[in-house]
Amino acid sequence: MKKTLLALGLAGLAGTASAQPRVELFGTYDIGVARLAGTERSVIGVSTGGANISRFGFRGTEELGGGLKAGFWMEAGVDADTGSGKASGGLSFNRRSTVSLLGGFGELRLGRDDSATFLNTLIFDPFLTNGVGGTMGFTMLGIPGAANANGGAPIQIGNAVSYFLPPDLGGFYGQAQIARGEQPTNAPNKHQGNYRGLRFGYRNGALHGALSAGKLQGDVGDNDLTAGNAAVSYDFGSVKPMLLWTSEKRGGLRVTALQLGATAPVGPGELRASFGHYDTHGSDADWNKLSVGYGYNLSKRTQVYGTYAYLKNKDGASRAIGVQGLGAPGTTPGGKATGIEFGIRHFF
Amino acid sequence: MKKTLLALGLAGLAGTASAQPRVELFGTYDIGVARLAGTERSVIGVSTGGANISRFGFRGTEELGGGLKAGFWMEAGVDADTGSGKASGGLSFNRRSTVSLLGGFGELRLGRDDSATFLNTLIFDPFLTNGVGGTMGFTMLGIPGAANANGGAPIQIGNAVSYFLPPDLGGFYGQAQIARGEQPTNAPNKHQGNYRGLRFGYRNGALHGALSAGKLQGDVGDNDLTAGNAAVSYDFGSVKPMLLWTSEKRGGLRVTALQLGATAPVGPGELRASFGHYDTHGSDADWNKLSVGYGYNLSKRTQVYGTYAYLKNKDGASRAIGVQGLGAPGTTPGGKATGIEFGIRHFF
Amino acid sequence: MKKTLLALGLAGLAGTASAQPRVELFGTYDIGVARLAGTERSVIGVSTGGANISRFGFRGTEELGGGLKAGFWMEAGVDADTGSGKASGGLSFNRRSTVSLLGGFGELRLGRDDSATFLNTLIFDPFLTNGVGGTMGFTMLGIPGAANANGGAPIQIGNAVSYFLPPDLGGFYGQAQIARGEQPTNAPNKHQGNYRGLRFGYRNGALHGALSAGKLQGDVGDNDLTAGNAAVSYDFGSVKPMLLWTSEKRGGLRVTALQLGATAPVGPGELRASFGHYDTHGSDADWNKLSVGYGYNLSKRTQVYGTYAYLKNKDGASRAIGVQGLGAPGTTPGGKATGIEFGIRHFF
Repeated sequence: MKKTLLALGLAGLAGTASAQPRVELFGTYDIGVARLAGTERSVIGVSTGGANISRFGFRGTEELGGGLKAGFWMEAGVDADTGSGKASGGLSFNRRSTVSLLGGFGELRLGRDDSATFLNTLIFDPFLTNGVGGTMGFTMLGIPGAANANGGAPIQIGNAVSYFLPPDLGGFYGQAQIARGEQPTNAPNKHQGNYRGLRFGYRNGALHGALSAGKLQGDVGDNDLTAGNAAVSYDFGSVKPMLLWTSEKRGGLRVTALQLGATAPVGPGELRASFGHYDTHGSDADWNKLSVGYGYNLSKRTQVYGTYAYLKNKDGASRAIGVQGLGAPGTTPGGKATGIEFGIRHFF
Repeated sequence: MKKTLLALGLAGLAGTASAQPRVELFGTYDIGVARLAGTERSVIGVSTGGANISRFGFRGTEELGGGLKAGFWMEAGVDADTGSGKASGGLSFNRRSTVSLLGGFGELRLGRDDSATFLNTLIFDPFLTNGVGGTMGFTMLGIPGAANANGGAPIQIGNAVSYFLPPDLGGFYGQAQIARGEQPTNAPNKHQGNYRGLRFGYRNGALHGALSAGKLQGDVGDNDLTAGNAAVSYDFGSVKPMLLWTSEKRGGLRVTALQLGATAPVGPGELRASFGHYDTHGSDADWNKLSVGYGYNLSKRTQVYGTYAYLKNKDGASRAIGVQGLGAPGTTPGGKATGIEFGIRHFF
Repeated sequence: MKKTLLALGLAGLAGTASAQPRVELFGTYDIGVARLAGTERSVIGVSTGGANISRFGFRGTEELGGGLKAGFWMEAGVDADTGSGKASGGLSFNRRSTVSLLGGFGELRLGRDDSATFLNTLIFDPFLTNGVGGTMGFTMLGIPGAANANGGAPIQIGNAVSYFLPPDLGGFYGQAQIARGEQPTNAPNKHQGNYRGLRFGYRNGALHGALSAGKLQGDVGDNDLTAGNAAVSYDFGSVKPMLLWTSEKRGGLRVTALQLGATAPVGPGELRASFGHYDTHGSDADWNKLSVGYGYNLSKRTQVYGTYAYLKNKDGASRAIGVQGLGAPGTTPGGKATGIEFGIRHFF
């Protein structure tokens, strides 16, 4: 677009748009200190995203009249312990990059977004998938070199088109999502990277339940990856237990997880705990993980937190505990792993 | 700079600068769905920049007194369908990165900016060079591996010094631009990457005409690239026709383009159409492209749009239709290509 | 974190937080034109950061009650002449990426920050380490391929934990900093990248003095790098002389620098000058550098500046004068080098 025209366009709007800001700058900064240990090795260092993922972004909505709205959302993850982004060290809007039309029909959303099959693992985990305590109930297959493209279920996914049900359905909500691998039709792997996902839930008062299912296509049918989950929570006020079941399958490899978690308001903060059993079907590559933590709110925006996690492998597994910005030191087959982390989380 | 000094400096200004914001956050998000087809192949996917390039940036001006102003402009392109930037996936201010002094003398601008020879192709194209319908009248040479450095005319160019005439010359405007390849004087290719460009125009009432010429030096004189264009438009109110002629030449290779375009206000939107003939001199590697589209304004800031384009090669050419974020599926020599795209564009 | 919860959290705060902005967008844009010359070669081009490093960032503080505050600071360097960042061309918060708790006890700061041993070289240099005139009294060792990791003292350092004394100690200030290389304990180079630094100073009226010392551990003890400096300045009003001594040592290689500098208010700007002697111990790889410059303030935020620097090597040295965004053309052993730069610096 011609920049001088854009500038004029903005100037012309200045008189009418002043009441409603066009763009909000928002983010989270969360940095801590962690010690991760496997059998015969450990690492101490500075970590990030122990309670909430460090990020910044720009977002806004515009009233179009007749109940219609437009919206955009740009959100970049940050390895705040080093200041790096995710794309070869550079920042990108890897967490969300969308434009939307919203109305009585629901929402049409285009771009990069959380995958439909990822969201429940986050919502029904006391640790929001983050830090040493976060659930491992997603991208569980651990296929070497897969990087969520062909061998692991996607967390965020680009080139997506999503439809969301409108918010006023008596507690029911839902989402359908299609993303494209964008292979040409004359390519041997023309379906590779295509993703389809569905997610439905019901939230009313203290009760919240949701389920999702999706498929990420591989280069051949045998490499298709299917993921699904189901979860429920009930907020008793004094404690909010939550149950999460997830499954990932590709070819002959299937891993399922069953995690019981709970959060409870204690003093000016929140106690968090979870226990998960991870089952690699048809093998003894199973593992269990126990996590406990507490987040102490200095304000609505600022929290200091501490988390401890313990993981025990069966003989066929060598899973470790990792954390963003510090990696995982690894462990031995059948070994155990521990993680402890203290940090500061600040919303802006 | 010492950060505590900076903080004090800002605090000291707070009392006087509050009426004028120091920095404006601005941008465009434009995401769509496109189908591109060549002979025997096609691709469907999520695209970006179909109507306007997706971007964000920071900019501002400061009154210095005596009619003098300082300004800065930082603008980063975004592949909004995936959230990525341009530098190995990371964001950079690849579209514009400048600091300026402005006054009665005009504007002195330093940094990275649109090249003088690119701007007219954008201004006199109904599709602003964007999407499936955009003109191909720039970087036409198609030299393999050239990437606008040695074998294609630059779109934006870094390390530039530009002078702009003042805005009050009775409709005349103009720009001179020098950019440096920054090779040391003892290098065999010491002139490589040096660029010089001029641009002049006249805009008064309904009439607008402009021309530009520039040269990008190669490693040897034979590899110098010269680019130029001339264009005119007249706004009749009901329709605004525009004619654009462009030329690029390096060594024995020369490609020229002649495009007739038009925009017309229709309902709450704009109809756009163009027909371009692209001539590779001394060969039959010519091609033609026809584009039609409509942008429906939901507001001054938000538009939904649809565009269709058809391209026909002569026997010596195999040009395809591409779009940002989806690439181009290619076609066969002498083949045809089509593109269709629907999207949402939002200014913020 | 669940995004809808975040949005609600922000909305809930809107009524109380309006008086205090949650985040400030700030930055500097500084672009110029420079000519750098060594023996038998030179380069002319567009440079950046000649007076102050080009950057942008987000920062803010929150009052937590009881004298406690939380703060965050994200700051990205920009090669403004091309718009690029530092991470393979992409932007990252490479200059600072921290979250802090501040109170009567001082400040606890986590993340990436200036190293304790770098800051004095900046504060006690009339040219703030920037441009053709900046001191070379840091990262002096010049170990090939070291890139501040194992062979040069760090400028900024990631994975750091810093403690700062409170600001009300009668002019005394101080900082202790630990950063982690984050090697696992079973690695042969398990200490590599660990950094410890201390910095103390006294500032009262016209007098300012500071010293610092630190160590960056290598893969083996012989590769440990130690850095230290001491500096003093006195502001007579008409002139502010400053003396800076710095040292870097690794294995048998030691380089020290002694620089006398001064700034003086002259007209609506500042005159700057420095002379530095750089001594490579036990060899004749010494060099001297003389710098003079003037910054003319068009406002508190905007400055035009010019700087000239001259460097003379002894027979064993071939140091050159470089500048951000243009590199250094190199010189011959025993040769001289010059640099001249004119630019515009704008704070926002």
